[in-house]
Amino acid sequence: MKKKYNIAVVGLGQIGSYLLNELNIKKKIIEVKTGVKINIVAISAKNIKKKRKFKFNKKIFFSNPFEIFKKHKVDILFEAIGMSDGISKKIVEEALNNKTHVITPNKGLISKHGNSLAKLAEKNNVNLEFEASVAGGIPILRTIKEGLTTNKITKVYGILNGTCNYILSEMENSNQKFTDVLIKAQKLGYAEPGNPKLDLNGFDAFAKVRILSALAFNSKISHQKCLMEGIERIELDDIKIANQLDLRIKLLGITELKNDKLFETVHPCMVGKSSYIGNVNGVMNAVITEGKPVGESVLQGEGAGPGPTSSSLLSDLLSILRGNIKKPLGVSFSNLKSFKPYNVNNYTNSLYLRFVVRDKPGVLSQITNSLAKFNISVKRLIQTPDKKNNKATIVIITHKTPEINCRNCLSLLKRNKNILKAPTLIRLFD
Amino acid sequence: MKKKYNIAVVGLGQIGSYLLNELNIKKKIIEVKTGVKINIVAISAKNIKKKRKFKFNKKIFFSNPFEIFKKHKVDILFEAIGMSDGISKKIVEEALNNKTHVITPNKGLISKHGNSLAKLAEKNNVNLEFEASVAGGIPILRTIKEGLTTNKITKVYGILNGTCNYILSEMENSNQKFTDVLIKAQKLGYAEPGNPKLDLNGFDAFAKVRILSALAFNSKISHQKCLMEGIERIELDDIKIANQLDLRIKLLGITELKNDKLFETVHPCMVGKSSYIGNVNGVMNAVITEGKPVGESVLQGEGAGPGPTSSSLLSDLLSILRGNIKKPLGVSFSNLKSFKPYNVNNYTNSLYLRFVVRDKPGVLSQITNSLAKFNISVKRLIQTPDKKNNKATIVIITHKTPEINCRNCLSLLKRNKNILKAPTLIRLFD
Repeated sequence: MKKKYNIAVVGLGQIGSYLLNELNIKKKIIEVKTGVKINIVAISAKNIKKKRKFKFNKKIFFSNPFEIFKKHKVDILFEAIGMSDGISKKIVEEALNNKTHVITPNKGLISKHGNSLAKLAEKNNVNLEFEASVAGGIPILRTIKEGLTTNKITKVYGILNGTCNYILSEMENSNQKFTDVLIKAQKLGYAEPGNPKLDLNGFDAFAKVRILSALAFNSKISHQKCLMEGIERIELDDIKIANQLDLRIKLLGITELKNDKLFETVHPCMVGKSSYIGNVNGVMNAVITEGKPVGESVLQGEGAGPGPTSSSLLSDLLSILRGNIKKPLGVSFSNLKSFKPYNVNNYTNSLYLRFVVRDKPGVLSQITNSLAKFNISVKRLIQTPDKKNNKATIVIITHKTPEINCRNCLSLLKRNKNILKAPTLIRLFD
Repeated sequence: MKKKYNIAVVGLGQIGSYLLNELNIKKKIIEVKTGVKINIVAISAKNIKKKRKFKFNKKIFFSNPFEIFKKHKVDILFEAIGMSDGISKKIVEEALNNKTHVITPNKGLISKHGNSLAKLAEKNNVNLEFEASVAGGIPILRTIKEGLTTNKITKVYGILNGTCNYILSEMENSNQKFTDVLIKAQKLGYAEPGNPKLDLNGFDAFAKVRILSALAFNSKISHQKCLMEGIERIELDDIKIANQLDLRIKLLGITELKNDKLFETVHPCMVGKSSYIGNVNGVMNAVITEGKPVGESVLQGEGAGPGPTSSSLLSDLLSILRGNIKKPLGVSFSNLKSFKPYNVNNYTNSLYLRFVVRDKPGVLSQITNSLAKFNISVKRLIQTPDKKNNKATIVIITHKTPEINCRNCLSLLKRNKNILKAPTLIRLFD
C-alpha cells in the first residue's frame, strides 16, 4: 500500500479554498485515520491574485491546471471549478487518463457526463468520487452505495435545493412575497447574487435527482426529458392558502421505478404540515429512501456551503486513502441497467388549482364544467371574493387525476377570458 | 483478490434465519456488486429441529459451532446468537484468531467486549463489523466512520430503542397506561414477551450509546458508570401533561464531550412537540450527530426487526467482499483515546417535576421552599386539585438547575408526609 499520496486542488473559489484549508489543518488526523500521508503538490485557479479567505502556498500554484501532470505524479485530484463542461470536464478526463483518482462536488458535470467519466475511471482502475455533488454534507451517495447496498430501492425523494427551501420557508415566516425573499436570500448568500435561475427553476435539484437514480437503481445516469418545475411561480397567496389547509409547499426531487420505468421529477409539492418532510425548513436538505427490507430511511443535514461540502469531499478522500477502490456508479459499468422513461401523462396526483377570476356569475360553473369534462373530480373548493377589485380567487383541491387530464383541462381554460391569469397548479404529495 | 468467500452463520433465531435466507436469495446481486462469489459452508444453532420461517440446508448444519473451523476455512462468520458473553464471545474470538472476518448485530457483546475484540481483529488483520448493533437498518456507524470521518463530532443523541418509543407514542395515541401498552407491544412483537426489562430500563439504548461514543470520539468503548433511566416510571398523567405543555416524552440516548470529559446518558426527556425529535414516533429510531464543519446530521429509519437488521449485516458483508479492510473502531487501537467521565452532578437541565400531594394548606409552600433552599427556581407551576380523593397534583417546570441540587432537594422532599408518592422527574431536552 502506498504510504504517501500526492494531491492537487483545481479551482479555488469558495469551495476549493475552504477545502484546501481543511486539508492543511487536518493532515495529522487524516494520517491517524488512514495510516498514510497526504502531500498537496499543486493548486490551480484562474487568478492567483483574487482575494481569498484562506492563505495558500503560491509556490505550488499553476495558472494552467494541465501543466500539473507534466510536473507531478498526482494521485488524487480535486476538481472544484464547477462547470458542467469545458475545463472541468477536460481536467477530470486528463486526470483519469493519468490514473489519478478524482473527487468532485460538481453535480452539473456528473449528471451530464457521469456515464462516460465513470467508464473512463473504471478503465483506468481509479476512483471517481462525487459524494458532495448531492445534498452537501449528507452522506447520501455512500449510504445508497454501501449502507443500503443490498436493498431493493424503489423510490428516493427529498428536498435537494436549500435555496428554494429557504425561500419557501421564509415566505411563510415573514409573510413576504417571492421577489423580496429572493433578495434577502441573495444578501445572506443562500442564493446566487448574479443568476439564481438554476436553483429556482429546479435544474439544480434535477441534476441531483439524476445522480440519485443511477445509484439507487444501479443504472446509467439518464438523460431523458422529464418533468421539471421550479418555484418561481409560487406566490404568497399559495403559501397562505396552503397554511390554511394545514399544508406546506416544498420543492421535491423524486425518482422512482414505476412498473420498471424510470420516473424522475422535480416540482413544488403540497405536503402535510405535520409530515416529516413538511418540517424540513430553511436551508436544510433531506433525502428519503424507500427500500426492501430496510423500510424508509431518512437523512437530513446541511445541503450546501463550504463546510458541509468539504465534509463530503474529505470523506471521499479518506475512502481512497484507505484503499477502497470502487466503481463510480456502485457496480461495474457493463452491469448498469437502462430504464425506459415512465409516461408522464400517467402521473396521477391530487392537485391544488388556484384561479384568479372576474367576479361575475357563471365563472365558477365554467371552471367546474371544464374539470368535469376531463374527469377531474373536485374534493374541496374555496371561493374568496375580492369585491374591491371585482375579482375572486377560486381554490380547488381535486381528487387524484392523471397529468394528461389536468394539462388538457388547463389549456382549455387558458382561453377563458374570465380567468385573469394563468392558473397555479401544485401537486399534492402522497 | 479472492474470488470466493466461505461464509458461516452461527445462530438461527429470528435474525440469523432471516439473514440466511437473504444470503441465499441475494447471491447473484452480491456477485454483481462486488465481483466475488459467496459460499455458505456452515450454519449452526442450538436446536436443528426448532421451527423456523425459512428452510435451510441441513447438510451444512453444525450443533457445535467450534467444529466449523476444524472442517472449513471460513472467511466470514456471522455471529447471531446474541449473548453478551459466553458462547457469543468465544465463537467471535475463535473466528478472529482463525483470521476470519466477523459480522455481528450483537450490541451487548460489542459494548461489553468491543475493545478486546477490536484489538484481536486488528492483530489478525481481519474486520470486526457491527453496523447492525446500533439502530438496526440505519447505517449510522458507517456514516460516522466514513461519511463524517474528518468532522469534529461533539455530540450524538437520539431515539435508540424502538420498544420504548412505541410505548410512549402509543400511550399518547391510545390514552392507555404503561402496563396496558406494554402488553400490546408484546403481542405485536415490539417488546420481548418474557423479559422486556433490558429495553424498558434503558440498558439496551445504553449499550448503543457506548458504541456510538467510541466511534464518534475515536475512543475506546467506555465502561464508566453513568446516568441510566428507563421509561418504567412514566405514567399516563405525565404523557397528558406533556401534551398540554406542547411537549412530548422521548427516551433519549445522549453522548457528548463536555470540556473533554465524556458524558453518556440514557433517560426520558421532554422535547418540543414540533421539534424534529419530537416527531419521530412509533418504532422508528433516529440519530442526530453534531459535528464541525458539517453541522447537524439526522438519520432516521427502522431500528429493529430482521429486515432492517439484515440490511445492515449485508452492508458489512459487502464492505468486506469489496476488500475494505478496516479498523473496527475507526482508527488503530493504539490511537484510540480514553476520556475521563464528566461529573454527573454538574449536568444542568430544566426539570419537569410532578408531585402528588395531600390537598391541604401549606403543602405547596413546603415544596417551593425546598426548591428555593436548593437554588432551584420555578419557571412554571400548575396545581390541579383532585377534591374527591383529597389530593392534588403539582407540576413544576424549573429553570436550568444542576443535577446535584435537584437530587438533594428530592431526597429532602421524600421525607415529607404530605407528598404521597415519589415525585416524577423528567429532564427537558435543550
